[in-house]
Amino acid sequence: MLMQTHEARLDALRQELKRRELDGFVIPISDEHMSEYVGAYAQRLHWLTGFGGSAGSAVVLQDAAAIFVDGRYTVQVRDQVDGKLFEYRSVPKDTIGGWIAAHAAQGARIGYDPWLHSRGWVQTVSKAAARIGAELVPVTGNPIDAVWQDQPEPSPAAAMVQTDEFAGRSSADKRAEIADWLKAEGHDAAVISALDSVAWLLNIRGSDVDHTPVALSYVIAHADGTAELFIAPEKVTPELTKHLGNAVTVRERSAFPAALSAMKGKKVTVDPNYGVAAIAQALEAGGATVSFERDPTILPRAIKNPVEQQGHRDAQARDGAAVSRFLRWIEETAPSGEIDELAAAAKLKQCREALGNLKDLSFDTISAAGSHAALPHYKVDEDSNIPIPPSSIYLVDSGGQYPAGTTDITRTVWVGPGEPSAEMKDRFTRVLKGHIQIDRAVFPQGTTGGQLDAFARQFLWEAGVDYAHGTGHGVGSFLSVHEGPQRIAKPSGGQAGTEQELFAGMILSNEPGYYKQGHFGIRIENLVLVEPREIKGAEGNFLGFECLTFVPIDRTLVDKSLLTEAEIAWWNSYHAKVFAILGPQLEGDDLAWLERHCAPL
Amino acid sequence: MLMQTHEARLDALRQELKRRELDGFVIPISDEHMSEYVGAYAQRLHWLTGFGGSAGSAVVLQDAAAIFVDGRYTVQVRDQVDGKLFEYRSVPKDTIGGWIAAHAAQGARIGYDPWLHSRGWVQTVSKAAARIGAELVPVTGNPIDAVWQDQPEPSPAAAMVQTDEFAGRSSADKRAEIADWLKAEGHDAAVISALDSVAWLLNIRGSDVDHTPVALSYVIAHADGTAELFIAPEKVTPELTKHLGNAVTVRERSAFPAALSAMKGKKVTVDPNYGVAAIAQALEAGGATVSFERDPTILPRAIKNPVEQQGHRDAQARDGAAVSRFLRWIEETAPSGEIDELAAAAKLKQCREALGNLKDLSFDTISAAGSHAALPHYKVDEDSNIPIPPSSIYLVDSGGQYPAGTTDITRTVWVGPGEPSAEMKDRFTRVLKGHIQIDRAVFPQGTTGGQLDAFARQFLWEAGVDYAHGTGHGVGSFLSVHEGPQRIAKPSGGQAGTEQELFAGMILSNEPGYYKQGHFGIRIENLVLVEPREIKGAEGNFLGFECLTFVPIDRTLVDKSLLTEAEIAWWNSYHAKVFAILGPQLEGDDLAWLERHCAPL
Repeated sequence: MLMQTHEARLDALRQELKRRELDGFVIPISDEHMSEYVGAYAQRLHWLTGFGGSAGSAVVLQDAAAIFVDGRYTVQVRDQVDGKLFEYRSVPKDTIGGWIAAHAAQGARIGYDPWLHSRGWVQTVSKAAARIGAELVPVTGNPIDAVWQDQPEPSPAAAMVQTDEFAGRSSADKRAEIADWLKAEGHDAAVISALDSVAWLLNIRGSDVDHTPVALSYVIAHADGTAELFIAPEKVTPELTKHLGNAVTVRERSAFPAALSAMKGKKVTVDPNYGVAAIAQALEAGGATVSFERDPTILPRAIKNPVEQQGHRDAQARDGAAVSRFLRWIEETAPSGEIDELAAAAKLKQCREALGNLKDLSFDTISAAGSHAALPHYKVDEDSNIPIPPSSIYLVDSGGQYPAGTTDITRTVWVGPGEPSAEMKDRFTRVLKGHIQIDRAVFPQGTTGGQLDAFARQFLWEAGVDYAHGTGHGVGSFLSVHEGPQRIAKPSGGQAGTEQELFAGMILSNEPGYYKQGHFGIRIENLVLVEPREIKGAEGNFLGFECLTFVPIDRTLVDKSLLTEAEIAWWNSYHAKVFAILGPQLEGDDLAWLERHCAPL
Repeated sequence: MLMQTHEARLDALRQELKRRELDGFVIPISDEHMSEYVGAYAQRLHWLTGFGGSAGSAVVLQDAAAIFVDGRYTVQVRDQVDGKLFEYRSVPKDTIGGWIAAHAAQGARIGYDPWLHSRGWVQTVSKAAARIGAELVPVTGNPIDAVWQDQPEPSPAAAMVQTDEFAGRSSADKRAEIADWLKAEGHDAAVISALDSVAWLLNIRGSDVDHTPVALSYVIAHADGTAELFIAPEKVTPELTKHLGNAVTVRERSAFPAALSAMKGKKVTVDPNYGVAAIAQALEAGGATVSFERDPTILPRAIKNPVEQQGHRDAQARDGAAVSRFLRWIEETAPSGEIDELAAAAKLKQCREALGNLKDLSFDTISAAGSHAALPHYKVDEDSNIPIPPSSIYLVDSGGQYPAGTTDITRTVWVGPGEPSAEMKDRFTRVLKGHIQIDRAVFPQGTTGGQLDAFARQFLWEAGVDYAHGTGHGVGSFLSVHEGPQRIAKPSGGQAGTEQELFAGMILSNEPGYYKQGHFGIRIENLVLVEPREIKGAEGNFLGFECLTFVPIDRTLVDKSLLTEAEIAWWNSYHAKVFAILGPQLEGDDLAWLERHCAPL
């Protein structure tokens, strides 16, 4: 079959818009659940434009079109998208609403798919469009789907039960907690549309989205503890039906909009960030009273129960052995100059697969050699792939999805021969000192991630440098590797979560870094669990972090003279634990490698 | 003359309200400028209830009345205010609006003085009162003033010129900056009603408010760089008239409301926090278009110019000599047990007066002995005054107003004989370590005080303790000792400023503490100036702090084993500077005392 050109695709979309009497259409990278990663069937922006990044949008009018990407994709968008078809626009400087107001005709009707945008987005863009009398119009059926001939079907994979052995808490118990909240707030029901919220609430998992083990579905949770699950019938196995029990009604996924419209007279709460605009529109059109509050599963999901905590410890202990085997392999083979980034990522995946219970990677491995490591979000592919240069820094950020927990770890290692430069060692050691400060932090109940963030940066700041990403994100239990609501970051960084109080049981990454553009990059990432701290004489409740990730940190890159005695003690204690946890899992040369890397500094 | 009882005063107010056909009235501690400290003429709550605290409000209905104070005054209000006349209410738990809704009659008309409340307050309380159909009604002329027979007159003191020698920048130059901002924002004028804003903008000072050298006045600043100053004629000296020049029109303070009402068709901006409700009401009634934005003098006032910076250095250097003479006196005399808190405060004032250029204290000295030091806002008076107990901790937080700058310093000292307990030394040393962390902090441009706050607390947190106040506030240049907009504090602490980016030239206090209720209190406070930091290899602009306050810290309270080498180096370097700056000003026994206290640790 002849590949359709992007010009032909754009033409086809414009014809379809004409047929529907629309003057334009907005194309995001999004799905019906506002997921971070979206399935192939929902990669409409990629199909239309060729853009392969993970965040962006396009607007198509009959005589103009533009693609909007952020600073990470400035170069990539010019490589992949034809500038004769789409103007390049840069967010946050340029806005979709502003572009519509500048380019659409007075009174234009601009379509949007209400299943792919939040209500807030619709309000903001509508307001901007109204400046020229233009109107944002929800479409029924996405016009791209009408012209995308070989659009993949949504995944038909079966949904699976997450047993209590890993979940630690029954779905009935979780539903009862949500029901109590609904009653206390005076609601009749909550619409749960985020895929990981559905998965957590019903103790189910799936294989419909890359790297996140969720099943495409919605839930309406009622104040009596019952729930309706909207899911494609082919996903429902007898085992799942049995697991869900009588209190959960299983309905066709396609019946969801009609079910919302049938909630006349009910008080229904919807999350303003995770509930797409169509949900509130269908509820309101049907006569329900809608209120907008945070998805009530988000906070209890973030606070891991003891079984989930132990699951994380177990998963990370085994994952650490796989990563250690990989690091020994890198140390021995990469100095030859014959290992490239893709081969390294493949080897790391093999090491994880050899554990026997890997369900997926938790995200695309960042296998970054040389100056690629200076791009915090670097994604290796056939085009970007380079051999790891001898005498350079190699950075690998990766994770696995295991039934007991989700892992996420970054190690930065020196690839010989020779020694790292004094600058590399200085920067690495400052990153390490910040990592240690977070790991050792003690703080009162009521503290937020935004208050702790500067602990990780202070030693870099002393040297006049910093890193342009957050210090830590939440992590799911066999769910999303990026999970809210908590976050350790600068409050002004623009991502939510820095004002969330930390609670015992929350899991966060601890990943300060440093990036010298065009030269090298450093990041040291472990996961930590918020735990209560008993302190003699304490006034009030205090918290600290239990480290969950155990893999040697590369001592070749450490300038010991920059470390305090307390930091050296931390290093030695950490590596003693690494050896205690990984030693029994390794043997032969791997064990010898581990022993060497865990010796006191 | 017979003192009128509070019962008689309350009766008189209720009669007056009846006469005006009002069902109630709200009495705040406030003035027409939303000042932190208010003059005697505006102490209406004290006159009506006897309450002597610095924050509180009362609501009077015909058959009920309540006084609202915060947690600091729970005990004091019960001592000073008759519970048969006023119910005690605790903010923030209880609200004025809520109390009105619970106690006033349906449709009640509750008076308020629009010259004493912000617009936001009026909106919030009106909304709560509306729940029972009650209405908040602005009064013309405060009803308390009608029945307060011996109400003091507002101060008649002359206004003074703050010469360029201290101001560092002409009023014309400052007005030109504000005019540029007005033009850029599309405004015709700004109403400047905060007294320190008026003082800064026109380079004038006054003696109308305790501890803050301001003159009761308003300014309307116009987009052409001219201004109108509304001030009582008796305050205007020929020198002042000459200083103000032709571009500043001097008008009667009483003409201010009419001037606002005459701004028909003008676009006028008012600060929502510092502009009382009456200002916007008068503007709107007169046909002006009002917008609400931060007082445009606040940020330039906070960023001290080089002359002001040098003025602070000079003022603090001299002030430090006075405080050091006092500390030597305390060390020598207090162990006898014969010095009380008031006597100590008086001695400290004498030491400052002996410098020859003290204009006022910058606030009431906190002279706190024994368990009084555990009350961070303790105010000594004849009733609370106690002798400083031998073998105890004494805390003194004080400051002076000098033409070159405003000072604010806290020292906590051991009063012999004997040695402080291990607990005292542990806590003092942790406070010191936090103080040093702030003093040594380096941070990128764009950092806020909220991001730095945890640096000061971390060592206390490690021991399971904390302090319930901010770490640092802004300080004026011969103006308010508490000056916005910047602040180092927990973002959740409720006071504005933690989200303000810090700029070079801002001055902040650095004052971590620890308070053991019923036992002892510790605070170490210096002022610091935000300064640019040149760092070799820096990526971007970085800032740090220059310390402005030089007085020995009491080494008797230090547990040296808790200090790192870097902290000991900081201590020794700080005290070497103390000796270099104060040594030339002291002689004899004072100099010997200083030398002893500045020896390496």
